[in-house]
Amino acid sequence: MQAIGKRRWTIAGGRIPLESNGTEPEFTSRDEIAVLNCCDSPARLRIHIHYADRPAVGPYEVEVAARRVRRIRFNDLIFPEALPLHEDFGAVINADIPVVVQFTRLDSGTASRSAVATAAYAERNLQGSGR
Amino acid sequence: MQAIGKRRWTIAGGRIPLESNGTEPEFTSRDEIAVLNCCDSPARLRIHIHYADRPAVGPYEVEVAARRVRRIRFNDLIFPEALPLHEDFGAVINADIPVVVQFTRLDSGTASRSAVATAAYAERNLQGSGR
Amino acid sequence: MQAIGKRRWTIAGGRIPLESNGTEPEFTSRDEIAVLNCCDSPARLRIHIHYADRPAVGPYEVEVAARRVRRIRFNDLIFPEALPLHEDFGAVINADIPVVVQFTRLDSGTASRSAVATAAYAERNLQGSGR
Amino acid sequence: MQAIGKRRWTIAGGRIPLESNGTEPEFTSRDEIAVLNCCDSPARLRIHIHYADRPAVGPYEVEVAARRVRRIRFNDLIFPEALPLHEDFGAVINADIPVVVQFTRLDSGTASRSAVATAAYAERNLQGSGR
Repeated sequence: MQAIGKRRWTIAGGRIPLESNGTEPEFTSRDEIAVLNCCDSPARLRIHIHYADRPAVGPYEVEVAARRVRRIRFNDLIFPEALPLHEDFGAVINADIPVVVQFTRLDSGTASRSAVATAAYAERNLQGSGR
Repeated sequence: MQAIGKRRWTIAGGRIPLESNGTEPEFTSRDEIAVLNCCDSPARLRIHIHYADRPAVGPYEVEVAARRVRRIRFNDLIFPEALPLHEDFGAVINADIPVVVQFTRLDSGTASRSAVATAAYAERNLQGSGR
Repeated sequence: MQAIGKRRWTIAGGRIPLESNGTEPEFTSRDEIAVLNCCDSPARLRIHIHYADRPAVGPYEVEVAARRVRRIRFNDLIFPEALPLHEDFGAVINADIPVVVQFTRLDSGTASRSAVATAAYAERNLQGSGR
Repeated sequence: MQAIGKRRWTIAGGRIPLESNGTEPEFTSRDEIAVLNCCDSPARLRIHIHYADRPAVGPYEVEVAARRVRRIRFNDLIFPEALPLHEDFGAVINADIPVVVQFTRLDSGTASRSAVATAAYAERNLQGSGR
């Protein structure tokens, strides 16, 4: 299948919630991205995390297999260092081939869970098929 | 009316929730897409589902009548095979004419329902009017 | 101030919830759009509503004053005919000058309110500044 | 790192909720934007607020440090004047260098919190890298 998506995605409003309620791991509070790779080759992602008051950290390296989807919880990114809970961050995701990225938050630290989803921002001039 | 929208849409963060609360079918947990076809002819959609750890399945074929809107629950896609509950998936939706797609999740399996909506990702180089 | 936005926006996943809880009118269940007009002249909107199983209805005509924002509840659109509750619809919004449109749903008909917001789909080839 | 994002972003559906529940300041009802600046120089933002029935107010001036992310609550914008609670507004955000903006609302004034997030509308012809 042909390449679908773009090679750079960004998220400005990340924050891993502090508390969790509900069954683990399904309802662990988290920020996560879902990545769809429609290509015939694996996608190599390099993620840089930007903070409010200290230098950016990265790259976190993640692979998404050919023709597969993969959820990546920011909680699970631990090398070069784990992301702190409850601290604002932004993420820049660079892929070596076009992918589609969706950003979701699940906040289970309150009586009522609150979930938000939004498309990440796709950088237009790094589009896959235009090259 | 002229064509509005694009011919390819993708969703990276699909997952059909396991449990449901509330009246059926209004509050059945579900992932669904709403498709708007403003053209004077029916739109034929071919949907491929991508998974995390097994080959993609499809096409699921769905038609949206001329000048109509249609909600499609992923729960209801059963041929070539029903989508499993509680498993991550991505969807690639190809239409033969331009349509507009919106993605919504309703999770009623908890005390408090949680709903998310997000625009699907529209592939730019498959835009309707540019051809 | 210069024109910002686009002249055509679409929503695929509209549906006015049936029940409401909470204080009126703040928590009336509703689908609504927020329209921002940054131009020095009023924006004239013509909205067409598409349904799942009957012909489209419109235009509903709405004006947004120069350099103002305006919320428009689909519940409040009554001419040429009121929108039915609890029925799927899509909306095509044409403006005579560029505007920015955001779509929000508030569903107060349940113990826990659920709100979704999503950017409407902006037709690229009807961009304001490209003309 | 190179510039990522755009120089103009807009929000049409702003409204600061009236009531709050939960711990301060984490659960104060609010509308906020998260801004990601990937450039090597600080980004200077000029925000104009548009209302439903009175003239626009601004600019509110905010700086986002080089290679940092910053959350800006509309509640906290006080010069030239504080934003009123519970009143519809739109925001036009102009930056002197490209940034990425994400819009989030947290409404804690009800038994169940409700959160919405949506990408702000990015003006295409003010893209960073295209110049």
